[in-house]
Amino acid sequence: MAMASKTMQMRSNAFSSRTALNSRKSGPSQLKLSAKPCRSGRSSAFVTRCGKTPDGPKVVIAGVTGAVGQEFLQVLVQRDFPYSSMKMLASARSAGGKVEFDGETYTIEELTAESFDGEDIALFSAGGSISKKFGPIASEKGCTVVDNSSAFRMTEGVPLVVPEVNPEAMAGMKYGKGGIVANPNCSTIIALMAATPLHKVAKVERMVVSTYQAASGAGAAAMAELELQTQEIIEGKPPTTTIFGRQYAFNLFSHNSDVEANGYNEEEMKLVKETRKIWDYPEVQVTATCVRVPVMRAHAESINLQFADALEEDKAREILAAAPGVSVIDDRETNTFPTPLVASDMDDVYVGRIRQDISQPDNKGLDIFVCGDQIRKGAALNAVQCAELLL
Amino acid sequence: MAMASKTMQMRSNAFSSRTALNSRKSGPSQLKLSAKPCRSGRSSAFVTRCGKTPDGPKVVIAGVTGAVGQEFLQVLVQRDFPYSSMKMLASARSAGGKVEFDGETYTIEELTAESFDGEDIALFSAGGSISKKFGPIASEKGCTVVDNSSAFRMTEGVPLVVPEVNPEAMAGMKYGKGGIVANPNCSTIIALMAATPLHKVAKVERMVVSTYQAASGAGAAAMAELELQTQEIIEGKPPTTTIFGRQYAFNLFSHNSDVEANGYNEEEMKLVKETRKIWDYPEVQVTATCVRVPVMRAHAESINLQFADALEEDKAREILAAAPGVSVIDDRETNTFPTPLVASDMDDVYVGRIRQDISQPDNKGLDIFVCGDQIRKGAALNAVQCAELLL
Repeated sequence: MAMASKTMQMRSNAFSSRTALNSRKSGPSQLKLSAKPCRSGRSSAFVTRCGKTPDGPKVVIAGVTGAVGQEFLQVLVQRDFPYSSMKMLASARSAGGKVEFDGETYTIEELTAESFDGEDIALFSAGGSISKKFGPIASEKGCTVVDNSSAFRMTEGVPLVVPEVNPEAMAGMKYGKGGIVANPNCSTIIALMAATPLHKVAKVERMVVSTYQAASGAGAAAMAELELQTQEIIEGKPPTTTIFGRQYAFNLFSHNSDVEANGYNEEEMKLVKETRKIWDYPEVQVTATCVRVPVMRAHAESINLQFADALEEDKAREILAAAPGVSVIDDRETNTFPTPLVASDMDDVYVGRIRQDISQPDNKGLDIFVCGDQIRKGAALNAVQCAELLL
Repeated sequence: MAMASKTMQMRSNAFSSRTALNSRKSGPSQLKLSAKPCRSGRSSAFVTRCGKTPDGPKVVIAGVTGAVGQEFLQVLVQRDFPYSSMKMLASARSAGGKVEFDGETYTIEELTAESFDGEDIALFSAGGSISKKFGPIASEKGCTVVDNSSAFRMTEGVPLVVPEVNPEAMAGMKYGKGGIVANPNCSTIIALMAATPLHKVAKVERMVVSTYQAASGAGAAAMAELELQTQEIIEGKPPTTTIFGRQYAFNLFSHNSDVEANGYNEEEMKLVKETRKIWDYPEVQVTATCVRVPVMRAHAESINLQFADALEEDKAREILAAAPGVSVIDDRETNTFPTPLVASDMDDVYVGRIRQDISQPDNKGLDIFVCGDQIRKGAALNAVQCAELLL
């Protein structure tokens, strides 16, 4: 019953975000990224995919001081994303700070309409209102936008893309030609990385999702507050509740997004609507309950699937083990399954607890448990992968 | 849309188990319980329900040094449970220690077959093997057993009882006459406290449960380890992993019970099987994914319900608000819903996020989110309530 994973890397201890969190705290001028060196030499066959190169696109990072902005930089270096120039943008408050990237030091500039003149690709993660205002401006200037906010996700004509799931939605798009690509919400990306390979084989008819969401989804300040609160409670002090207005440490609570008229919160409705758009399948039935748990940077999701066709659990496990960007951790004997800690700082989405749902007849149901890094595949990595489709 | 709860008591901060946890650490001889004084005088009309009284049953606590054993004592005092004598039992290791209860000091005795001679009611929470060995012995001696372990839950002829749900299963049982009553598993009790009132109106056909389970379910030592680990990680040290063999702080993991051949762990199968027995409804379809989260003593559960008949969410909210032992916290405007912290140390099970499941047609589905104190209603309180049915 044991199932080896493709990359079952276990972390020894601690939450892996500590370094990023601590450097974040010391302000934008102190931002440093431990980027690994460029993998292949400039003269190799992969020259156009390796870091700074004269024929690479001119790249803009909008919102470089945020948790996702920082992760953009790490992912770009780690994937040897080709670029001829790099521009670091943030709010006026952060302008003038320094960012080190790929061996060079950049000065953060204030994001304005002029920031996009002559640029080719802009990675946005500066909040929905900034995206709404400056995304179309950048696009009109020929700078192709990959937007991590929710601003354009449900806009008709804007592709909503998980590269492993629906790259075809970006067909014909290219850097330097304008246009906007939307990055789905983190919970949607993580759920669909696991559900799509199964959906392609047996057609999902209904999906019941319960999430266990990390602090990182609410930004670096929320991660810092969780750490601070924990410290305070351990010391017997009342917890600081600036971000969520409540105790988060040693507690959990319904997701902090607004609740809509139908009783679902916005996070839950993103899962419902984005799944339909990404799968181009408006009839798929989805319900979700989204919950914040005191975990730093990786989400977990308990997903119950109802299929049109029978799908045996062993077959499902094979499908998932072969799926790009997915790692199976499913060792029943040793009780080893995905955890947020294992998924933290990793590219893959981890899937386990793959089992036939005994509450559904004819092998038409499965239960799975999924973990993925919220900042990485849930945001920055997925956006950079979208940008790679523009090359 | 706001919905007032019957007893929406908010905690100011911290996990409320700290005092119990800390006193537990100092060893059984130091056990003290801050029991409130007896509510009604011995001469009142409720004399038979008020603490020590010559015509009350002779009560035995088997496993008094555990987290649930301690809670038994608190609940007995708080509910003015009538008793003529009280005996405190534990393993040989703990024998000789002192326990204060209802103003008197008791010496802990070693649990043996003779412990039950002439006794009327035994509350067991000393682990399954102790229950299996000594439960039938106690019963044969005429001591009626309420057992908190899983030893007899699925045994035919042993009622499995949540007093608000199926008190009729204990019909004819009385203290001093022998017999065994089984306390359901904590997750089952908490789920069914909320699901049963709805089931009685619209008949549940299928239930998809994802749990967020506290440390307390694994005992006082697990709670202490979560606290210790958290401290260690905050200090940058490697975490102590004696109980679960892994990092629990700032992490979560699939429930630590053994995984059965069908891929469900024992905790999940308890939910499936116990629901069928308690509801006396073998056809009900249940699937569950049980997960431990870094929370101290109250479980949360995300429950998706599929009904035979339509049930509108407003009607469901009314039904739940009127249900005994249930409090509704469901304020969409202020995003105020049940949390483990609110439920900690409380008797009621808290229900919120009550909404029509948009993935099911004809108003035949509901999503709810439930929190309940694992040690109290999930164990000690439910057992004492069963004992009350023996009076």
